[in-house]
Amino acid sequence: MNMDAEIIAVGSELLTPFRQDTNSLYLTEKLNALGIEVRFKTIVGDDRARLAALLRTALNRSQIVILTGGLGPTEDDINREVVAEVLGRPLREVPEIRKRIEERFARLGRSMSGNNARQALVPEGAAWLANRLGTAPGLWIETDGSQIILLPGPPRELEAMFESECVPRLARVSRGSPIKRRVYKVIGLPESEVDQRIAPLYKAYQNPVTTILAVSGVIEVHLRAHGENEAEAEALLSELGDKIETALGEHVFSSRGESLEQVVGMYLVLKQKTLATAESCTGGLLGERLTRISGSSSFYRGGVICYSNEVKTKFVGVPAQLIEEMGAVSSPVAQALAEGVRARMSASIGIGITGIAGPTGGTAEKPVGLVFIGLADERSTQVREFRFPGDRERVRLWSTNAALEMIRRRVRD
Amino acid sequence: MNMDAEIIAVGSELLTPFRQDTNSLYLTEKLNALGIEVRFKTIVGDDRARLAALLRTALNRSQIVILTGGLGPTEDDINREVVAEVLGRPLREVPEIRKRIEERFARLGRSMSGNNARQALVPEGAAWLANRLGTAPGLWIETDGSQIILLPGPPRELEAMFESECVPRLARVSRGSPIKRRVYKVIGLPESEVDQRIAPLYKAYQNPVTTILAVSGVIEVHLRAHGENEAEAEALLSELGDKIETALGEHVFSSRGESLEQVVGMYLVLKQKTLATAESCTGGLLGERLTRISGSSSFYRGGVICYSNEVKTKFVGVPAQLIEEMGAVSSPVAQALAEGVRARMSASIGIGITGIAGPTGGTAEKPVGLVFIGLADERSTQVREFRFPGDRERVRLWSTNAALEMIRRRVRD
Repeated sequence: MNMDAEIIAVGSELLTPFRQDTNSLYLTEKLNALGIEVRFKTIVGDDRARLAALLRTALNRSQIVILTGGLGPTEDDINREVVAEVLGRPLREVPEIRKRIEERFARLGRSMSGNNARQALVPEGAAWLANRLGTAPGLWIETDGSQIILLPGPPRELEAMFESECVPRLARVSRGSPIKRRVYKVIGLPESEVDQRIAPLYKAYQNPVTTILAVSGVIEVHLRAHGENEAEAEALLSELGDKIETALGEHVFSSRGESLEQVVGMYLVLKQKTLATAESCTGGLLGERLTRISGSSSFYRGGVICYSNEVKTKFVGVPAQLIEEMGAVSSPVAQALAEGVRARMSASIGIGITGIAGPTGGTAEKPVGLVFIGLADERSTQVREFRFPGDRERVRLWSTNAALEMIRRRVRD
Repeated sequence: MNMDAEIIAVGSELLTPFRQDTNSLYLTEKLNALGIEVRFKTIVGDDRARLAALLRTALNRSQIVILTGGLGPTEDDINREVVAEVLGRPLREVPEIRKRIEERFARLGRSMSGNNARQALVPEGAAWLANRLGTAPGLWIETDGSQIILLPGPPRELEAMFESECVPRLARVSRGSPIKRRVYKVIGLPESEVDQRIAPLYKAYQNPVTTILAVSGVIEVHLRAHGENEAEAEALLSELGDKIETALGEHVFSSRGESLEQVVGMYLVLKQKTLATAESCTGGLLGERLTRISGSSSFYRGGVICYSNEVKTKFVGVPAQLIEEMGAVSSPVAQALAEGVRARMSASIGIGITGIAGPTGGTAEKPVGLVFIGLADERSTQVREFRFPGDRERVRLWSTNAALEMIRRRVRD
């Protein structure tokens, strides 16, 4: 039987329209891997009475209760005190924690403020969790039937502490079967078509559970399996996963979490090809995505952001007459951009993108969302015409997805 | 006295590491504007017993309880039934809803599946809320002391329904004073320095409440005021806001929500200046940010992504010898990039960025995070040296922030 956990994020700023709790996504992934299910996620402000009531409810319904945030040095940071109060345990100063905080301040050349001393207070009987990246230690409290874990709010501190201090402890108490996940990323098929192809396969399985999501123009097929041990869960993932991969064929570009640009970069390095880009409507987004990858200088020569016609002509060699006759957004201009940037940057492959991202600039003949993408290599040049729905951001994103997919297919074959 | 609301997002997919509840951000903003405070946000899976227990707790502590999601046609969609069960009210089919759903399917050329008939069920005494953009109607139920609102999960449907059906109803029941917000965006000062300058000002006010956040290298000062009416709340925002703006001076680039690139674009258009960019380590991110703005073609000529040294030389005219002698990451190369791209693209202003984004490529002398940014205009060229902490993504983002800020200052003066 898997253990139940819940996550309580504490902080009034998380109840504004401006901030999201993202720590819970990281924690969920780690808890699931240990065979622990997350049943509730709650956000509450810096309010003692509300947090105390919520904590009592949580201790009645969940075996593991994780509180994030609220461990800082200020008056607003109430988690330590509320937990001590709800459990009826006095707070005691731990000299070792105080010493560490003082040393940390000394290393930074500052002296500890009185407020920081509050961070050395620990409820009776609690273990404290070292914070390598900040001053606030975490806390681990066992009660009759529950584990309460207090973690700092900053993601870097929380993640480092959870990994080193909590995962080993949880592995000891968890009696659950491990949960493993796998994500197949699919491009070039609409969500409905993906579902139609694979529904007969995944409906035959209660375990793994399959979910289909559309994320930034990529369709993701999520499998989630539990088994007696990790190997059994993995075997279940592979059994269904292999069938899904066969049904979706070449549209699957990743099953290990890689992004489309990472897969493209990998193929380019593998085949020892280089790439150059000439982008109009995407304004550098394709170059930006390619250079997110560390080491991209080994395959990416560079690009021209040809936002004006003069730059298309002067930097990429697109004849001014061609632009005038066909329009900047046209198949021949996409071809000339791809071929021109390939030749001038001495790359194996050249990409040219020209289109109308909107919201203005569309006409009846050339509407917003019309995009031409050219790909030139030593053999030939291919131009594809797309009509992307949606707003400016979406048209630009989908254009770069389509360009990356064209490169992937060309290089893979 | 302001009313208390809480938001419950229902859906097992929201308890995975892959999905966030974003509807609550929209709802919080709208509720606050009506003088309603959000006290709790909870996420729970598609589980009848857990949702029922949570709903009972919520009805005990909040005057307005909003449930999102769980109104679809499938077995997983439990909100309608759980609410009816908790309130002890039978579900009755509403012929008008059924007719609307059938008409919607007919318009799409499909026939209604049996499952969709469930969407016409309404708990006794509840009002239903028309859904212009989907099949699932919302529900509004008054109980002794609470309002329960059920909304569909898809953001487009939820937002349209909330705006047209809920805002007018809530305005009638809310006895609270309106809450207004303002955000000052600050660049070029660390968070601690911002706080030091403005703490004496905002600490004199209980209303507005001030919060300082660091978001992607920009410091945001959030003010939140409530008043008898919107004008009074606005006046309070202006009173404190003007003092804060004076204390932070030229570091404030926005008080109306604009992004840094929008402000820069606005100045460039206003002063009739054009811009060209030569980016090495940022790989097109600066161009991408500038061209997010619709209409950017009026000031942005284009750019070169000079990821290889040959491209720096051939496309921007940086002497190969200079690169060899000084290194590609150096002040003279940043200067040559800025001046070269300005001249070759016939722009008023040229920007050159060269640096080491990491994680590899750093040396003792030129560590990861070292970035030179050059700005050339008709008067002179300025080069600034930066050492940004953090990972590749952060170094690239902060580099483009710094470049945009250099442009803002140059063009504004």
